[in-house]
Amino acid sequence: MKDVQNSADNRGIAIQRVGIRDAHIPLQIKTKAGDYQQVLANISFTVSLPMEYKGTHMSRFQEILNKWTSKPIAEPEMADILQEAMERLQAERADIRIEFKYFVDRVAPVSQYKSVLDVDCLFDGSLNKNSPLQFILGVKVPYTSLCPCSKEISEYGAHNQRGIMNVQVSFDDFHECILIEDLVLLMEQQASCQVYPLLKREDEKFVTEKAYDNPKFVEDILRDGVLALRKLPGLKWFSLDCDNFESIHNHSAYASHEEYVE
Amino acid sequence: MKDVQNSADNRGIAIQRVGIRDAHIPLQIKTKAGDYQQVLANISFTVSLPMEYKGTHMSRFQEILNKWTSKPIAEPEMADILQEAMERLQAERADIRIEFKYFVDRVAPVSQYKSVLDVDCLFDGSLNKNSPLQFILGVKVPYTSLCPCSKEISEYGAHNQRGIMNVQVSFDDFHECILIEDLVLLMEQQASCQVYPLLKREDEKFVTEKAYDNPKFVEDILRDGVLALRKLPGLKWFSLDCDNFESIHNHSAYASHEEYVE
Amino acid sequence: MKDVQNSADNRGIAIQRVGIRDAHIPLQIKTKAGDYQQVLANISFTVSLPMEYKGTHMSRFQEILNKWTSKPIAEPEMADILQEAMERLQAERADIRIEFKYFVDRVAPVSQYKSVLDVDCLFDGSLNKNSPLQFILGVKVPYTSLCPCSKEISEYGAHNQRGIMNVQVSFDDFHECILIEDLVLLMEQQASCQVYPLLKREDEKFVTEKAYDNPKFVEDILRDGVLALRKLPGLKWFSLDCDNFESIHNHSAYASHEEYVE
Amino acid sequence: MKDVQNSADNRGIAIQRVGIRDAHIPLQIKTKAGDYQQVLANISFTVSLPMEYKGTHMSRFQEILNKWTSKPIAEPEMADILQEAMERLQAERADIRIEFKYFVDRVAPVSQYKSVLDVDCLFDGSLNKNSPLQFILGVKVPYTSLCPCSKEISEYGAHNQRGIMNVQVSFDDFHECILIEDLVLLMEQQASCQVYPLLKREDEKFVTEKAYDNPKFVEDILRDGVLALRKLPGLKWFSLDCDNFESIHNHSAYASHEEYVE
Repeated sequence: MKDVQNSADNRGIAIQRVGIRDAHIPLQIKTKAGDYQQVLANISFTVSLPMEYKGTHMSRFQEILNKWTSKPIAEPEMADILQEAMERLQAERADIRIEFKYFVDRVAPVSQYKSVLDVDCLFDGSLNKNSPLQFILGVKVPYTSLCPCSKEISEYGAHNQRGIMNVQVSFDDFHECILIEDLVLLMEQQASCQVYPLLKREDEKFVTEKAYDNPKFVEDILRDGVLALRKLPGLKWFSLDCDNFESIHNHSAYASHEEYVE
Repeated sequence: MKDVQNSADNRGIAIQRVGIRDAHIPLQIKTKAGDYQQVLANISFTVSLPMEYKGTHMSRFQEILNKWTSKPIAEPEMADILQEAMERLQAERADIRIEFKYFVDRVAPVSQYKSVLDVDCLFDGSLNKNSPLQFILGVKVPYTSLCPCSKEISEYGAHNQRGIMNVQVSFDDFHECILIEDLVLLMEQQASCQVYPLLKREDEKFVTEKAYDNPKFVEDILRDGVLALRKLPGLKWFSLDCDNFESIHNHSAYASHEEYVE
Repeated sequence: MKDVQNSADNRGIAIQRVGIRDAHIPLQIKTKAGDYQQVLANISFTVSLPMEYKGTHMSRFQEILNKWTSKPIAEPEMADILQEAMERLQAERADIRIEFKYFVDRVAPVSQYKSVLDVDCLFDGSLNKNSPLQFILGVKVPYTSLCPCSKEISEYGAHNQRGIMNVQVSFDDFHECILIEDLVLLMEQQASCQVYPLLKREDEKFVTEKAYDNPKFVEDILRDGVLALRKLPGLKWFSLDCDNFESIHNHSAYASHEEYVE
Repeated sequence: MKDVQNSADNRGIAIQRVGIRDAHIPLQIKTKAGDYQQVLANISFTVSLPMEYKGTHMSRFQEILNKWTSKPIAEPEMADILQEAMERLQAERADIRIEFKYFVDRVAPVSQYKSVLDVDCLFDGSLNKNSPLQFILGVKVPYTSLCPCSKEISEYGAHNQRGIMNVQVSFDDFHECILIEDLVLLMEQQASCQVYPLLKREDEKFVTEKAYDNPKFVEDILRDGVLALRKLPGLKWFSLDCDNFESIHNHSAYASHEEYVE
């Protein structure tokens, strides 16, 4: 049977990325506790294609992924997956983007009731023939923000709302990379208050007063987030954006920042 | 050229709905002011298919819709569109569902600054050979809700958030059907406060204090909404659901209710 | 601390549904093989609220759900969850809607390569004080459709595309309820061809020719689906809709049908 | 009333972008024909914030946008909008991202029936104190792709599907910038066939055979797209990604490429 993909191409264009997108696979993500969490992953997985070839072999991406449905993954395994893609598809470069919901343990601040909070996460890896793995960890952390202006100018009350911080980080060396659980904890402390799936009445009093005691503009949350991130040892690069779903508008207040750290 | 759709079918199944879905068309919606508003519509448009025929003629739905891109539409025109579909496709029944964003004028409560608020709307029409048009008007109204429990138990402050009311109404007679602009105004008055695209500082003080003076659970907003709807003259049926995007959780507080009105 | 929710309400409106929505929880779904599959669930969970009470107790929904994160669930457990909600929230009725992606095993038709196909599923349960559990199982099955008209009128080729069947079924008795795995298999056989995550070249030849040998309009897939569903023993009700993402248009061809089975 | 936003900040962090997001506004986009098209825009609009200030003035973004609801917009007006934001918010930089659905005229290839095709578009503009407007035009063009491998190895037929090309372009000088209508036409010619909202039977024969005569991998569509883009006079940069919604899989085949043109 003819291998059309393998036939020659004379347009002279080396393609930067070709592969599969929106593929859903069950994966296991390594946890801080030392075991793993079963997740539902949405995956983009590509390789570069030299100008000589007409096409890549799409089925091999699925073959590689299938082998990883029962082996826990963290940053080092990302390099293994990409290495295998480069070899099996004879490519100079491979990229993978894995998005998944991850649950972190949460304890209500007063009642101590336990629950699990869902956080959208990202593992983004790139491997080139001549350089080590480039890895980005991303988390989208929900939070409460309370408006300082509204508090200041009003006789009582202050508008507040849920927001989402989208933070992505990259480290010089994978041994230094922060864990999902720690990054979530670090970032939500920069908001007016954390959010919880389960709160009893004594907790609701606590979070209401904490947010009121801790008013922050989207600019404040962003700035405090930047300060927190800059202190992470070994951090090479980060981007942070904060999206406040304003309770008094039908749009968001928004701030973003990106930085290469010295 | 053979008309495969017109060939006979012997499975004995009359199909309830067949047609097109997720078709995007520019339409003109009649306004309260007497002119029209240009909108971007997402349309599902179907007819019933007798058991004798293999298929319907899909291109005719687009032909009918194309004629309506420059003629203002309200409830009466829905009947015209469906009547044409029944005739051209020789069907006993036709259904159309038109979803669009509509802008309503908004004036800030103190500064009187003007802006336009986006509201997701629905025109849902069904026509049968032997009965008049069934028409449902739907609007999704954003609002502010402020939690009475949080206000009661906290020393200061109270959590609040944006919410969305999805209200759908059907009237005995189309002359009685409420207008989009009026339905939005009616429903948002049932919340702790309205939302506005544009607020100056004096307005922000006003809405913050108004919401604090007017705490409502999702149950309160639903119940006050039900009371308001029951008073509409000629109302035959309604459904209402309220979705509060809790600022202290990563999920919604939710209430819904549906009723045939005597 | 005052229990505001428990205070009296005099508006005289019993609310049909109040609770939480868009709550994400890890759950375990029982499989055909006898064990369970870990899934990421999106949940709506409500109870009815008598007219005498101002509000329900939102935290209890999360408390109930948290207990179910490590106990495998199928139809009988849905009744247990709802029963607990009715008791703990003193309600006459409880409803839960659980949506999750589920993976079914797939073997390529010629090469016999194995992979897992993602299918969106629904468990929808309602319990009343005076009647047994009402349970709906839903699956969204992807498929290939190939147009009979295009095949008939063209010298060569025929347009084809991916489609999604959204089928929901309810049975008289839960012992008769079909399993997810079996419902997926049954429904996809009604299309021009099944879809597979992983196909080698010999498989691609097979599915291409199978679809061409088996042209079906969206009406045909719907009708064959209806015939297949009617044969299920104990089936009480079903709804089926088919959505073909036409490769020659920027909209879908669509058909739907709903039936109470004798 | 105190202006909290104007108070001093001593964290020493100049914020790159702060403003509003997901704001919906009706706008008028200039057309090739010389008039304008009314669209529904989703807008992100931000300015930079010096380290000295605590916050920006969010209401001014809406004030500026409101003035533009009835003045037709193209690239030059983007600079005016950003210039006004820089002045009114005393910023060194302003950014705006406007996303909207735009309709292009379409004539069926044989029957000559007319319809309008919806295309998702992007106007992305950035202005700095010391440099001219950076402007990116983006369009997402739907198309048909037919698989060369499937055609080659099968006795008859070939799998095909809808795909979307996301192309973004930036020019040295705004006088050279291509128009939406022309960019759509140029890009869809690189696929196996165009898509149409309205096709009669003679047109369906035409597009079926045209796609079969013109098989292209996602790699082919990308490469031909790159060649077409490189020929645009004055083009400075482009990115292109192609997403084939495979009819034989439940995921996409995908290729992307980005280039600064000499």
